[in-house]
Amino acid sequence: MTVMPMRVLILGIDGYIGWALAQKLASQGHDIYGADNFYTRRRVKEVGSDSVFPIPRIGARLQGFKKFYDKDIRFFRGNVADPKFVYKIFEDIKPEAVYHLAEQRSAPYSMMGLKQANETMIGNIVSTINLVYAAKDLNPDVHIIKLGTMGEYGTPNIDITEGFFEIEFRGRKDTLPFPRNAGSWYHWTKVHDSNNLMFANRLWKLKITDVMQGVVYGTETNEITRSHLYTRFDIDEVWGTALNRFSAQAVTSLPITPYGKGNQKRGFLSLDDSVNCLTIAMERPPKEGEYRVLNQFDQYYSVNFLAETVQEVYRELTGKNAQIQHVDNPRVEAENHYYNPDHKKLYDLGYRPSGNLRDEIKKIIEDLMKHRERLGKLKKVIMPKTFWRESSGL
Amino acid sequence: MTVMPMRVLILGIDGYIGWALAQKLASQGHDIYGADNFYTRRRVKEVGSDSVFPIPRIGARLQGFKKFYDKDIRFFRGNVADPKFVYKIFEDIKPEAVYHLAEQRSAPYSMMGLKQANETMIGNIVSTINLVYAAKDLNPDVHIIKLGTMGEYGTPNIDITEGFFEIEFRGRKDTLPFPRNAGSWYHWTKVHDSNNLMFANRLWKLKITDVMQGVVYGTETNEITRSHLYTRFDIDEVWGTALNRFSAQAVTSLPITPYGKGNQKRGFLSLDDSVNCLTIAMERPPKEGEYRVLNQFDQYYSVNFLAETVQEVYRELTGKNAQIQHVDNPRVEAENHYYNPDHKKLYDLGYRPSGNLRDEIKKIIEDLMKHRERLGKLKKVIMPKTFWRESSGL
Repeated sequence: MTVMPMRVLILGIDGYIGWALAQKLASQGHDIYGADNFYTRRRVKEVGSDSVFPIPRIGARLQGFKKFYDKDIRFFRGNVADPKFVYKIFEDIKPEAVYHLAEQRSAPYSMMGLKQANETMIGNIVSTINLVYAAKDLNPDVHIIKLGTMGEYGTPNIDITEGFFEIEFRGRKDTLPFPRNAGSWYHWTKVHDSNNLMFANRLWKLKITDVMQGVVYGTETNEITRSHLYTRFDIDEVWGTALNRFSAQAVTSLPITPYGKGNQKRGFLSLDDSVNCLTIAMERPPKEGEYRVLNQFDQYYSVNFLAETVQEVYRELTGKNAQIQHVDNPRVEAENHYYNPDHKKLYDLGYRPSGNLRDEIKKIIEDLMKHRERLGKLKKVIMPKTFWRESSGL
Repeated sequence: MTVMPMRVLILGIDGYIGWALAQKLASQGHDIYGADNFYTRRRVKEVGSDSVFPIPRIGARLQGFKKFYDKDIRFFRGNVADPKFVYKIFEDIKPEAVYHLAEQRSAPYSMMGLKQANETMIGNIVSTINLVYAAKDLNPDVHIIKLGTMGEYGTPNIDITEGFFEIEFRGRKDTLPFPRNAGSWYHWTKVHDSNNLMFANRLWKLKITDVMQGVVYGTETNEITRSHLYTRFDIDEVWGTALNRFSAQAVTSLPITPYGKGNQKRGFLSLDDSVNCLTIAMERPPKEGEYRVLNQFDQYYSVNFLAETVQEVYRELTGKNAQIQHVDNPRVEAENHYYNPDHKKLYDLGYRPSGNLRDEIKKIIEDLMKHRERLGKLKKVIMPKTFWRESSGL
């Protein structure tokens, strides 16, 4: 599909998805503006961890980008929770589309304690409120693409729809928001954001895509494979997600640790699919005045299946056996449950998964093996230490 | 019902409901502890308004209370959004029950602009998070009674249940949170709180009653009629609610102003019923580890019906005619809708409405007429000025 180049702002451009997305959008011919306050870099270091791949400072990143893509990214340093910062960017550049990827994104971080719970609540909610006000005041036609999570829905015993569902109850019908039931303070902030966005749309008819994203895995995208401008990759218990962490466990000869029984099912997608979907969402916007919810994932897997698949791929690649060791579930979640979420809308817009799970895991493991030394130093922060029920108080 | 005296903490004891509740609980023999930071007093003055009844400073209030009820209230001055403050109170007094009435409570205030939206989000959400952490750390058996609002549900085209509903969808069944669809940033904070409370209960099995309260009207309770220790009474467009405001409009010879068509229906209850229900909720707590949702209102009425009833009662009392004048709806809400919320649980616990609407309106008008002079000074802040869609930005 050929699309006119758009003026696109990425809030959180320095992050795992933001940096990969910038490259995808550039390769599609769009003009990129970015903002970040390096929150994730700081917070990851605070738990004694770091990105497995060394990430240059933003200046060097942008230079590398310019060299490879022959495009400047105008960068704004600041905090989206500061309304002045958001208004200033909007006044300066009047974006046609804005991605909000600038929220605290770790469930375990939000569950460490009261301080982190409140920090996550305030930062995430206020940043989204600031964004919708800046949009309605300065640029009401902007398309807001907001990153939420499939975790907003929890694991109900019925099919999960995309945002809304038509129900019959006591003989009457209505189309209502699908009930949310999240599993961490972090996940709840995304529910609160979704609710606030739905209301902002009702107030001001803002054009919004609310992305319920599955768990993202992978080290590369189509663009990163060519540019070698790697995005950050976190594998510690706080900032790393399941499949990425399992791969790191295999490579560092730690046991692969499904939490609890491991029958939990979740929607997953590769990093390449994630940035593809986000690009499609932007290039195929909702109607004027529409609040659109997209469930963004490729397939759903059980945690056990992922652990076994990492084990198999690692054996094929190295001949070595990675152990699987179930550990006490640090989370509060159902370990045996029905799971059947819809994810049709992005397919209808043109999304097709770009790879397969085993190839992606192979790439992750190969990339990790290139950084064995850095990875070795992170061994001590991979095993779970943040237990939901032990979230600390004052 | 005879109940053992309980150690009860009221967060927000200086407010409209808090002060009336303290008197109800005292008359039932409970020991009262209170906290407030006088936020409502300050914010009401900021919009050029004031309580119609003069409210003494807290010291004098507590002295009056002591004199009439022969009971000391231990008072803590501070902000519930400060975790240290909440922890200190819990350490000092280990309450058996705590009422959280200490949130920003005005929908129009939250809609004035970005600053007020964020202030309401942060203050309300953080105060509830602080409370559940203090409870789980210092007093996990405490019964938390949290004031929410019927406005959390919005006006769906199906019956509204009390918190949860059993649904069948695509041939499968589950009991899920009833979908929320609120109509202001304020109302949404109550939804966010409900979600956070439901999750805190799942984490730590805290005993919680989440009260979905209707619109409260009235100047007196059974206790206030005897003690003359009046609670505050707000009638301005920001801090006053429909029926109270209509009564003030009649008394000040302003037109009674239903917003829009006036066919909006809402659940209502008198102040006396409100403190009765809240007392019943405390004396008949949920089971250990239960998160309980109660829809707390007496009857539902259309706004037009209330306007006409105020007009009639005012005519009967004074022989004068109050005009009814529909004004542009400052809110964003359906003006013609189905409305049929359940409210069975409080009846099952023993709640019976203590009066009737007309008698209550009569009492309001008579009380207001005693303060004609103060009320006259407030005339200029009664008509609607806060328009939802014009909520101001930076």
